[in-house]
Amino acid sequence: MLNFQFHTPTKIFFGKDTHKQVGEIIKQYGFKKILLHYGGGSIKKIGLYDQVVDSLNNSGLEFVELGGVEPNPKLSLVRKGVQICKEEKVDMVLAAGGGSAIDSAKVIAVSALSEHDPWDFVSKKVTPTQALPVGTILTLAASGSEMSSSAVITNEDGELKRGFNSEFNRPLFSIMNPELTYSVNKFQTGCGIVDIMMHTIERYFTKTKNVDLADQLAEGLLRSVIRAGEIAINNPEDYEARATLMWAGSLSHNDLLGAGRDYFMTCHQLEHEISGIYDFVAHGAGLAIVFPAWAKYMYKHNLERFCQYAVRVWNIEMNFDNPEETAMKGIVATENYFKSIGMPVRLSELGISDDRFEEMAVKCTHFGKRTLPDYIELDKKEIIEIFELCK
Amino acid sequence: MLNFQFHTPTKIFFGKDTHKQVGEIIKQYGFKKILLHYGGGSIKKIGLYDQVVDSLNNSGLEFVELGGVEPNPKLSLVRKGVQICKEEKVDMVLAAGGGSAIDSAKVIAVSALSEHDPWDFVSKKVTPTQALPVGTILTLAASGSEMSSSAVITNEDGELKRGFNSEFNRPLFSIMNPELTYSVNKFQTGCGIVDIMMHTIERYFTKTKNVDLADQLAEGLLRSVIRAGEIAINNPEDYEARATLMWAGSLSHNDLLGAGRDYFMTCHQLEHEISGIYDFVAHGAGLAIVFPAWAKYMYKHNLERFCQYAVRVWNIEMNFDNPEETAMKGIVATENYFKSIGMPVRLSELGISDDRFEEMAVKCTHFGKRTLPDYIELDKKEIIEIFELCK
Repeated sequence: MLNFQFHTPTKIFFGKDTHKQVGEIIKQYGFKKILLHYGGGSIKKIGLYDQVVDSLNNSGLEFVELGGVEPNPKLSLVRKGVQICKEEKVDMVLAAGGGSAIDSAKVIAVSALSEHDPWDFVSKKVTPTQALPVGTILTLAASGSEMSSSAVITNEDGELKRGFNSEFNRPLFSIMNPELTYSVNKFQTGCGIVDIMMHTIERYFTKTKNVDLADQLAEGLLRSVIRAGEIAINNPEDYEARATLMWAGSLSHNDLLGAGRDYFMTCHQLEHEISGIYDFVAHGAGLAIVFPAWAKYMYKHNLERFCQYAVRVWNIEMNFDNPEETAMKGIVATENYFKSIGMPVRLSELGISDDRFEEMAVKCTHFGKRTLPDYIELDKKEIIEIFELCK
Repeated sequence: MLNFQFHTPTKIFFGKDTHKQVGEIIKQYGFKKILLHYGGGSIKKIGLYDQVVDSLNNSGLEFVELGGVEPNPKLSLVRKGVQICKEEKVDMVLAAGGGSAIDSAKVIAVSALSEHDPWDFVSKKVTPTQALPVGTILTLAASGSEMSSSAVITNEDGELKRGFNSEFNRPLFSIMNPELTYSVNKFQTGCGIVDIMMHTIERYFTKTKNVDLADQLAEGLLRSVIRAGEIAINNPEDYEARATLMWAGSLSHNDLLGAGRDYFMTCHQLEHEISGIYDFVAHGAGLAIVFPAWAKYMYKHNLERFCQYAVRVWNIEMNFDNPEETAMKGIVATENYFKSIGMPVRLSELGISDDRFEEMAVKCTHFGKRTLPDYIELDKKEIIEIFELCK
């Protein structure tokens, strides 16, 4: 186990009707002027918008609004949010939505107290030293952004999608009512399940030895998500399945499963290149395509861990005479599960060909400035080889 | 899954040499005058005391000291600590030690900003509204107090041992270097293992349905602790085993495994009556005696859960024709494990007879003012019956 720091200060209010307390919660913290930040029409359609506005009004809170966050949230809207915060003297940002609204809110909050452009933070040119507090009302079990230190923003200028981590990105509080995810359609539910699983799987595939405790927690979380995912896909209003996915989404990305180990997040990096260019690719769908390709490319370089994954997560019998077979069965089981919940597992299913693999790989190496660490080091050539397996 | 709030703001600094940063960490928070609170000679014997003092001095921090915390920490020393904090205008309390030093520090911190007597908080007559910040340097993997909201204090006047929970009891930060536990002897290591397991097991035996995610996490943690416990008992300087126990100790009691479920903590309540009267009984040893008795008394009232525990934690084959047998095998496996790590499993091993069972049961019902909720309600009669099984 490696040395680590662990800090998850976000206060969680989890369960039925919790979103109706939002005004009261904010009032207890003592904030007065809120930026309410959200996406398209879905929070209006499910009635959440009205309930939030009522709750804020009932608590006597002032607020301004900025809607319009898109999937793969855009830098231009962040800049608009920052301007509003400065002009209106906002003292906290409330995101209502999924990971996109929350990520956008985080970067607004970090930039609102600074003279730097938001992209300076996202591109890691500047390190945040303060931020407005962020609260969230989660409507999608997926990104884990509601409890994480990360935010991902797309710069439309160069079709660059970049993530950055900072302790200032951790929300002050998150309100999580699983009922708010009942209306999430099958496809988006599937994307969320993949995202949650991949946050766990990418921490699981580590080089660090002696990580049994985190392994056991990760394997348990995965088994639970796999089961709940099937149920939620088939019965969208199953509270318990939705609750399991929602809470697992937070735990998969709040560092609990990464504490004490090195990990790479390679699939996330590769996927960002896909959805950075092909904006219509949902992040979870992209991950469902990248993971099987990455795993088939990589499993021989840490056979033991891929076998452990197959045996403990997918209940596959260990073949000691042919561990490659065991490892591969675990990868195929994952791929089949992704298919079963309606996810694409090849780029061709999305109509994406290999024309821009070279460009994606170059961007992924930050134009030749880095390689990706993994069980073997990944440079442009290897990255293209993995994209080839995504075809 | 029930509605829940989850808040674990304690910042963890985990790993080798982390305790040497204590002065620097405190300085970053901006505190100036520290009460250093600890137990007997062990922190001096292992060199921790000198290293902490050096680190505080090097960071230019002022401090006063209060040693002498005993196992089952005493109200009288808490009162002394409160007086020092007030007289010396202390602005944070640093506990170096195990759960006793930390619990004592928490109650000092809660009382230092109040005119109420510390027992008013512990006996729940008064609810805390503020507290001095508490930092900890942990030297024993056991109580989980380094990340929990609970504190347990013994009032010598009436031999009453009582716990109280408050968000103000959560430490601001905890420094956890597993190497500091190398010198913990086999018996105390065993007590710690039992305490960690019981924090998990008591949350596991719930009435709440649909708690698969927390179940999976709890079962994984238990399997990991069982394995690491065996190693640490046989090889006290195995870093990885000590690290697993130390981190598991925090996770077992920081509410991660209790989120979304009701639980009873019956064994803890019964054990407090034993060690409240028989001061020489270590808390973990008392729990190792109480759990098998409680489980044998209770298993028929939730056979399904006791079977799940046996199968998933102890790898016992499910006997569908005779589930009682499966459940009982899980209980016996636990009892045998406790024995294997040097724990007593009957009061007679400690020379304690049944003379004071009646008195203990009366105290446990708060002199007739409460019964204990469990799979069946426990009043004085039932409590005595469980104590009888401890003989």
